[in-house]
Amino acid sequence: MSHNTFGHLFRVTTFGESHGPAIGAIVDGCPPGLPLSEADIQGFLDKRRPGQSRFTTQRQEPDAVKILSGVFEDDRSNGQRTTGTPIMLMIENVDQRSKDYSEIRDKYRPGHADLTYDAKYGIRDYRGGGRSSARETASRVAAGAVARKVIPGITIRGALVQMGPHRIDRKNWDWSEVDRNPFFCPDAAAARMWEDYLDGVRKSGSSIGAVIEVTASGVPVGWGAPIYGKLDSELASAMMSINAVKGVEIGAGFAAAALSGEDNADQIRMRHGKAEFLSNNAGGILGGISTGQDIVVRFAVKPTSSILTPRQSITRSGEEADVFTKGRHDPCVGIRAVPVGEAMMAIVLADQFLRHRGQVG
Amino acid sequence: MSHNTFGHLFRVTTFGESHGPAIGAIVDGCPPGLPLSEADIQGFLDKRRPGQSRFTTQRQEPDAVKILSGVFEDDRSNGQRTTGTPIMLMIENVDQRSKDYSEIRDKYRPGHADLTYDAKYGIRDYRGGGRSSARETASRVAAGAVARKVIPGITIRGALVQMGPHRIDRKNWDWSEVDRNPFFCPDAAAARMWEDYLDGVRKSGSSIGAVIEVTASGVPVGWGAPIYGKLDSELASAMMSINAVKGVEIGAGFAAAALSGEDNADQIRMRHGKAEFLSNNAGGILGGISTGQDIVVRFAVKPTSSILTPRQSITRSGEEADVFTKGRHDPCVGIRAVPVGEAMMAIVLADQFLRHRGQVG
Amino acid sequence: MSHNTFGHLFRVTTFGESHGPAIGAIVDGCPPGLPLSEADIQGFLDKRRPGQSRFTTQRQEPDAVKILSGVFEDDRSNGQRTTGTPIMLMIENVDQRSKDYSEIRDKYRPGHADLTYDAKYGIRDYRGGGRSSARETASRVAAGAVARKVIPGITIRGALVQMGPHRIDRKNWDWSEVDRNPFFCPDAAAARMWEDYLDGVRKSGSSIGAVIEVTASGVPVGWGAPIYGKLDSELASAMMSINAVKGVEIGAGFAAAALSGEDNADQIRMRHGKAEFLSNNAGGILGGISTGQDIVVRFAVKPTSSILTPRQSITRSGEEADVFTKGRHDPCVGIRAVPVGEAMMAIVLADQFLRHRGQVG
Amino acid sequence: MSHNTFGHLFRVTTFGESHGPAIGAIVDGCPPGLPLSEADIQGFLDKRRPGQSRFTTQRQEPDAVKILSGVFEDDRSNGQRTTGTPIMLMIENVDQRSKDYSEIRDKYRPGHADLTYDAKYGIRDYRGGGRSSARETASRVAAGAVARKVIPGITIRGALVQMGPHRIDRKNWDWSEVDRNPFFCPDAAAARMWEDYLDGVRKSGSSIGAVIEVTASGVPVGWGAPIYGKLDSELASAMMSINAVKGVEIGAGFAAAALSGEDNADQIRMRHGKAEFLSNNAGGILGGISTGQDIVVRFAVKPTSSILTPRQSITRSGEEADVFTKGRHDPCVGIRAVPVGEAMMAIVLADQFLRHRGQVG
Repeated sequence: MSHNTFGHLFRVTTFGESHGPAIGAIVDGCPPGLPLSEADIQGFLDKRRPGQSRFTTQRQEPDAVKILSGVFEDDRSNGQRTTGTPIMLMIENVDQRSKDYSEIRDKYRPGHADLTYDAKYGIRDYRGGGRSSARETASRVAAGAVARKVIPGITIRGALVQMGPHRIDRKNWDWSEVDRNPFFCPDAAAARMWEDYLDGVRKSGSSIGAVIEVTASGVPVGWGAPIYGKLDSELASAMMSINAVKGVEIGAGFAAAALSGEDNADQIRMRHGKAEFLSNNAGGILGGISTGQDIVVRFAVKPTSSILTPRQSITRSGEEADVFTKGRHDPCVGIRAVPVGEAMMAIVLADQFLRHRGQVG
Repeated sequence: MSHNTFGHLFRVTTFGESHGPAIGAIVDGCPPGLPLSEADIQGFLDKRRPGQSRFTTQRQEPDAVKILSGVFEDDRSNGQRTTGTPIMLMIENVDQRSKDYSEIRDKYRPGHADLTYDAKYGIRDYRGGGRSSARETASRVAAGAVARKVIPGITIRGALVQMGPHRIDRKNWDWSEVDRNPFFCPDAAAARMWEDYLDGVRKSGSSIGAVIEVTASGVPVGWGAPIYGKLDSELASAMMSINAVKGVEIGAGFAAAALSGEDNADQIRMRHGKAEFLSNNAGGILGGISTGQDIVVRFAVKPTSSILTPRQSITRSGEEADVFTKGRHDPCVGIRAVPVGEAMMAIVLADQFLRHRGQVG
Repeated sequence: MSHNTFGHLFRVTTFGESHGPAIGAIVDGCPPGLPLSEADIQGFLDKRRPGQSRFTTQRQEPDAVKILSGVFEDDRSNGQRTTGTPIMLMIENVDQRSKDYSEIRDKYRPGHADLTYDAKYGIRDYRGGGRSSARETASRVAAGAVARKVIPGITIRGALVQMGPHRIDRKNWDWSEVDRNPFFCPDAAAARMWEDYLDGVRKSGSSIGAVIEVTASGVPVGWGAPIYGKLDSELASAMMSINAVKGVEIGAGFAAAALSGEDNADQIRMRHGKAEFLSNNAGGILGGISTGQDIVVRFAVKPTSSILTPRQSITRSGEEADVFTKGRHDPCVGIRAVPVGEAMMAIVLADQFLRHRGQVG
Repeated sequence: MSHNTFGHLFRVTTFGESHGPAIGAIVDGCPPGLPLSEADIQGFLDKRRPGQSRFTTQRQEPDAVKILSGVFEDDRSNGQRTTGTPIMLMIENVDQRSKDYSEIRDKYRPGHADLTYDAKYGIRDYRGGGRSSARETASRVAAGAVARKVIPGITIRGALVQMGPHRIDRKNWDWSEVDRNPFFCPDAAAARMWEDYLDGVRKSGSSIGAVIEVTASGVPVGWGAPIYGKLDSELASAMMSINAVKGVEIGAGFAAAALSGEDNADQIRMRHGKAEFLSNNAGGILGGISTGQDIVVRFAVKPTSSILTPRQSITRSGEEADVFTKGRHDPCVGIRAVPVGEAMMAIVLADQFLRHRGQVG
């Protein structure tokens, strides 16, 4: 978990800037013999890809992934398979509009990493946010698709559960709705309402935050580790590393603070010879180790800082200046964070699975 | 950040179970020449130590730390100093009541890690929670005291900002109040109210959750790193690794989801030749790198699962059984999490400081 | 130092197989602001590139490197500079002869990793050795060129000091000779002799081993670390990770075993106000930390296992079979290991420098 | 593999100075359920312990190990077992003679780490070498005893194969001899000769180097990893991290440089349905992965730098001075390196085993 690497045994190292020639990831430590083709990955990238509705940025990035290493196919391998060596996933950048960057070259956009990158490094690729661009998350989604192959019995799904101040009604939750609206919203009624709401936000050149929930079903009891390798600790790290995320919670999350011990601790009964919990305030994790219940994580995404309204800021040389952002931005960047959150869940679980197998067999 | 190690250059590895002979930590990578005595550490341990008011467990653990390596003193070293080699901090366990553990030896306490440790490892030190005991956090507090020496210009302070459903009034915030009540509460009025409230919880044998806020002032702009080494990502990992924590947020946190881009992005002005932010929704971090503002982290602690009311559970052999916990437990374990959160903040910042210095000089 | 990553703060992760579309490396943790162009790297790759004399394989690999991320240039950056973000170096494979691999697809070549890769992974890219091909070392050479930029005051040079049974005469050592013969040999007389010798080896379809010496001048006193991060320990790991290397020694190396304490320990005098050692049996390292003298490492490379003479082996399905290798191979692969050894020295030193600066400032 | 930690999944972190209160190690990542008592460890420590013959230092260090965490015993656990949590091994220092250290406090002993530690850290525990003392290796031997439990089917044995200029005759190799002489020498004739030889060295206050060979039998084919996680690369790192080691080689080692491809590559036949190699120049490793043959490593230990003859050196303040070392030192410190080399072999193999199981299952 160094600066640009995530994971211990299943390790993802990403590279690339928004406006360089390419972005991508090296996935190291993947088990051998898993079927893996570019098509397996492309579907997840398409889900994250911008320009699919009027509610995401209109940039056109095909985000076509190429596998440059780590797979092999011959007439007896039964299709293309992982070999256990590093899998290099590359996505070329194609929609790098040649435009004038003088506006942000010298001005620090509020809410962006302009000031901090410049202060840290003294040099900065300011074109489209450079390394701090959300474009980096495409690499995660590609790596996440590989991770899913490592844990085939586990179903990972994400949904938008809050847009701006508007939460879904959990009684309406229907996973099949998620693919029927442009918001990954599991509540059909909420999705209809959000459509008008987000149109208003978009037309005014503003933006709004969101909350995403990601669950993993089918995780066996016993994955995770004590103390600093806790499953929840690594999920928190994973989700908080996504651009614009400001909060992460597991299970009951912050609401657990207001609960009594009687109400919070999930009681257990036996059903069909197996332990069954009567509730899931723990979010599927106790002591950092999976309980066998669904793993449930939520994270909050702040509103896109790129808006049309001028905001007060300063220049590189320390002069006060107003900044506003023309161009093609997401009115609710949280929408496209859904497949990214799913990918990070897959990466954390694949890594924990391999580590568990390593220590315990 | 392996299972029992936290950090990259400033590395903390902890060991020990609740009822073994000792717990402790090896702090590796500490810069040389820092003044460090046992007294420097003891003060922080005393803050976390149980039995200091009727609102924490009445166990008596002196938690006296011994430094077994990594420091040296002679007549020219100007007191005891770190040598740059591993600092071994040991705390002997002294109040290990010899009692009958048959109740939890075979029963899985709801909300505890009993079931998951047993499922993972097939063997478990069930005395007092073993490795999953909050006792481990004493090692972190000791290590955190060393971390503070590495970043002497930075002030790290924690406070309880919510107990059960009751939040402080932020208008009353007064850091000097924190040491005047048994809750580390910065709002004198809230503290008075909480006293009655928690007495009720305690007398009924119940428990309640809490929210802790930890801030770091004086962090220069530029610490942190992109992507997976983000300052906020590591703080999330650090706080979520503390026992019973279910949520972490930075700055505006989950509230940012409901904000518009106009309201969320912190505007910047120049004051006295320096950048000054007009708000701190970012919690002092943009793009994973410190802005120079206060770093602000909050985390939610669930209620202690050890309560007097019997709860439904199962035994090791898969029979249904009721469990309740006699003994000396914290009605609000969040209180003692305050110094632990401070320690983790110090450890994250010390490590990020050294890594920043390594890469950028 | 995971499977395909080397280093701690300056981290090199390589990918790619001999006959895939590309190989390369992500260099993470590089300091910002360093001048870095493709031309800076290409010179070192050219030195390693095959086909430059009749004494190396006649494969034609242009080994043209592309920098895909981590650098930036604008009108004020004074040329292309590193930005502190991951530097992706890609080398496309162009001379992948489409040939019949049935010979090695099912037979395990003695001395190669065919049997072990197959046993471990159950699947293997057998084209040209796949991941175990020495082709991977081109990625190291590229990364090493970046490492040299991190430690500009240090001169790293390598030389072939033994070919087969024939050692150089150290009295003839002349660094300027190294570039004048096809062997990187510092002894002109030895180089002349080796020419005939290696012609004989080559014409008979045989191969021969070699010993390489790499030195680093200008390393200040104090780099390195105790115990498991010792400079010599990491150099040993680095050199032994190069294909075909079977031994590594520092300074006097194995000869130190036969020395007395009086003869081995390098005595120290003061000269011009600085400590000066009267010998360098230590190879510039004491207690894992640099002394300020030249760092001196030697490593032994076994003969290429690909030879014309048939050798006894087995097939994948466990039948006995003879194997011989047609094709374009190095009669002394140790020659091309010289720039690889230099690169690994540069990578180890760059990483140790950053870690030293991190801990000690 | 940070400064004081070795390993990835099976991780050993050591602490302690020669003259502090204690030394020891935390072993993290150990599988659960393994039988482990202090007696299991003590036998290996006794083998390394000084003062057992006139040929090792006469210091009296009982080196009694205590297990402070990570094990558990109850009436159904069938003896004391590992729990999968960190195993803390502590050895108290008892023979710290209170003596006058002014001789080495200000003078840098040639061949020792005095100058380099002082230059790096600016402060140094000069009592008995502090952290750079070979005393640290007791911690490794203790950790190595735990590692052996992880790989019970593997036999690890070490022997002294060269003392000063005198090599054993390999035709005389008899493992049972190793325990019958004070040198761990497998050649009875050589051991007799060495006795007189080393008596001479000892009486003259001099010292001499040695070469140790460590083998592991029973390692299955397939352990290890490509590139930077190669089994041989990690063994090189492990052995070179032992105090006073100046060279490491695998299998034929440096001799491979003089071999032809025909002579070097180990041919393979089938015997009883299994692959059998006709020689072991590879030392049991091809492409960084075990072949199923014995793993064979040799390492060279330089002579103890502490000798009676005065040597030229300098003081801390830069004045020339002569240094000699009174006291109780090993005339051939290589002898006691034998159990240390065995321990490092065990640690590397245990870690590689767990990582192999993690990735491949």
